[in-house]
Amino acid sequence: MLISKQITLKSRPQGMPVGENFELVEIEVPDARDGEVLVQNIYMSVDPYMRGRMRLDFPVGETLAGGALGKVILSNHPNFAEGDYVNNGYGWREYFLSDGAGLSKVDETLAPLSTYLGVMGMPGLTAYGGLLVTGEYKDGEAVFVSAASGAVGSVVGQIVKIKGGTVIGSAGSDEKVDQLLNEFGFDHAFNYKTADPLAELRRGAPDGIDVYFENVGGEQLEAALTHIRPYGRIPICGMIAHYNDHGQLTAGPRNLTETIYKFVQLRGFVVSAFGSQREQFLKDMSSWIESGQMKYHETVYEGIEKAPEAFIGLFTGSNNGKMLVKLSDA
Amino acid sequence: MLISKQITLKSRPQGMPVGENFELVEIEVPDARDGEVLVQNIYMSVDPYMRGRMRLDFPVGETLAGGALGKVILSNHPNFAEGDYVNNGYGWREYFLSDGAGLSKVDETLAPLSTYLGVMGMPGLTAYGGLLVTGEYKDGEAVFVSAASGAVGSVVGQIVKIKGGTVIGSAGSDEKVDQLLNEFGFDHAFNYKTADPLAELRRGAPDGIDVYFENVGGEQLEAALTHIRPYGRIPICGMIAHYNDHGQLTAGPRNLTETIYKFVQLRGFVVSAFGSQREQFLKDMSSWIESGQMKYHETVYEGIEKAPEAFIGLFTGSNNGKMLVKLSDA
Repeated sequence: MLISKQITLKSRPQGMPVGENFELVEIEVPDARDGEVLVQNIYMSVDPYMRGRMRLDFPVGETLAGGALGKVILSNHPNFAEGDYVNNGYGWREYFLSDGAGLSKVDETLAPLSTYLGVMGMPGLTAYGGLLVTGEYKDGEAVFVSAASGAVGSVVGQIVKIKGGTVIGSAGSDEKVDQLLNEFGFDHAFNYKTADPLAELRRGAPDGIDVYFENVGGEQLEAALTHIRPYGRIPICGMIAHYNDHGQLTAGPRNLTETIYKFVQLRGFVVSAFGSQREQFLKDMSSWIESGQMKYHETVYEGIEKAPEAFIGLFTGSNNGKMLVKLSDA
Repeated sequence: MLISKQITLKSRPQGMPVGENFELVEIEVPDARDGEVLVQNIYMSVDPYMRGRMRLDFPVGETLAGGALGKVILSNHPNFAEGDYVNNGYGWREYFLSDGAGLSKVDETLAPLSTYLGVMGMPGLTAYGGLLVTGEYKDGEAVFVSAASGAVGSVVGQIVKIKGGTVIGSAGSDEKVDQLLNEFGFDHAFNYKTADPLAELRRGAPDGIDVYFENVGGEQLEAALTHIRPYGRIPICGMIAHYNDHGQLTAGPRNLTETIYKFVQLRGFVVSAFGSQREQFLKDMSSWIESGQMKYHETVYEGIEKAPEAFIGLFTGSNNGKMLVKLSDA
């Protein structure tokens, strides 16, 4: 009998998630019936948005879910063959059976497999759609992105540069700031823990910013509202500063009135909005990777046992680029 | 020599504006030269947005400005005749000379003159454009409007009803709540000083709201973010709770993260955005007034000397509907 190790949500995190919120269990995987495929996950993703779902809708006591990249190792389904690589929503487990719903085949010749959880996957499409669709970015504009060294932020910044704009990024350490400037080609970058965001925005974009790609909230959002130009757009991808709020919620920006005379728009979004952009995205992104214009980093933990640690690490800044857990060899 | 009494900004208000921030002066008006018209104002408007401009850009020591409705009493300009009524931006004064720029003739047969500063004027167009254009209101949706008994809010609510939707309004006294329900035809209304906004929204629109027409900020915005439906829109017309902030700014909504999964959009605007809707607006609004579907109230102070008192009264709730100052007879 095949055994799948998986991670369940033992209890809802109160504030910052801790190891005790998770439990490693072993599940027997039944034989694949007609119309089913058996998938072995190779990589799984951990992402900040999961924190919200742990508070809201992931059932306690059940295996968590999330993006993963697996290989079909047995198929009783006409549309899938053994050896197919599939993006799936069944992370946090080693093996699973599926009737094919929600599996999408990926082309392993276009880009490395792990990138389908990063620049070629959800974070990449989040950056691409959030900037170009929700943020209505126009070539040559000035963009500020917070959490800029992360899986989404670093792609946002590089797309701005590819499309001829100016990009300012913030990150939480001097090493990351250095990476933004010297690897990802940002025009200006600062450490939000030690610098004054508004002063940095004025330095990096003296005439104002057109788009603020929001990942953080708090003081950086206030600075962006103050320094944004008329008709500026603020796509709200996340507000990581608020995810671990517990009891007392963190106050929002004190200067939302800035939106009025400047006709500024704030708009929340999640990646599911960009289904119709996906094909163009894969084409653009693979060519940018190929040409060397799109760089990426991965932090890879090994083994399903390390998944909670990898997830918690997102909130303590222990990743450099996309945080992944490797569950098996390709 | 013609003397015009006018009101200057003596000092910038610190927090709530007070009488000492204003000064009544008398100015000699020169003779109209070729190409100029002499206008006598009949009504002037006081509006909450002026508070922001007193803090920011109205020059200290100079006559204030704002919407007014006047009559051409002498014309050396080919496009204007004596007796023409003109909307103009030269409020806070009895007489002025103009080369015609910024004057727009109004049709006194369509609606009463004073309404061109109210339902047929800037507040009306603000409501119309803010709801239909910025708020992307679709027939039948559920709308929450704060400061609902004001010049803008009461029009928003009535347009929603004319277009088949559900409208909830908040106001600052039980009398105003009564007026919303019994005169303006709101479906639900509450006194924000004594009621819990979120509980009231749940009562008035159990399935959620689609649009929050934002005039106030604070707790009502938080309740709206919580109770708004996916793809909801929040046109930001004003945040009167924040205008008189002094020193310590008031915190913003703690739950902006609600925007993310619900794809909610917040968007600031001012009436200047709706120039291309103006013609349709005047047509719609005059027919709604004519048919009795659009009701309005005016609070009229008499004499230029009373203008500061009228303006300050906006922030203490002493108006019922559009606040006007009458400067002369038509």
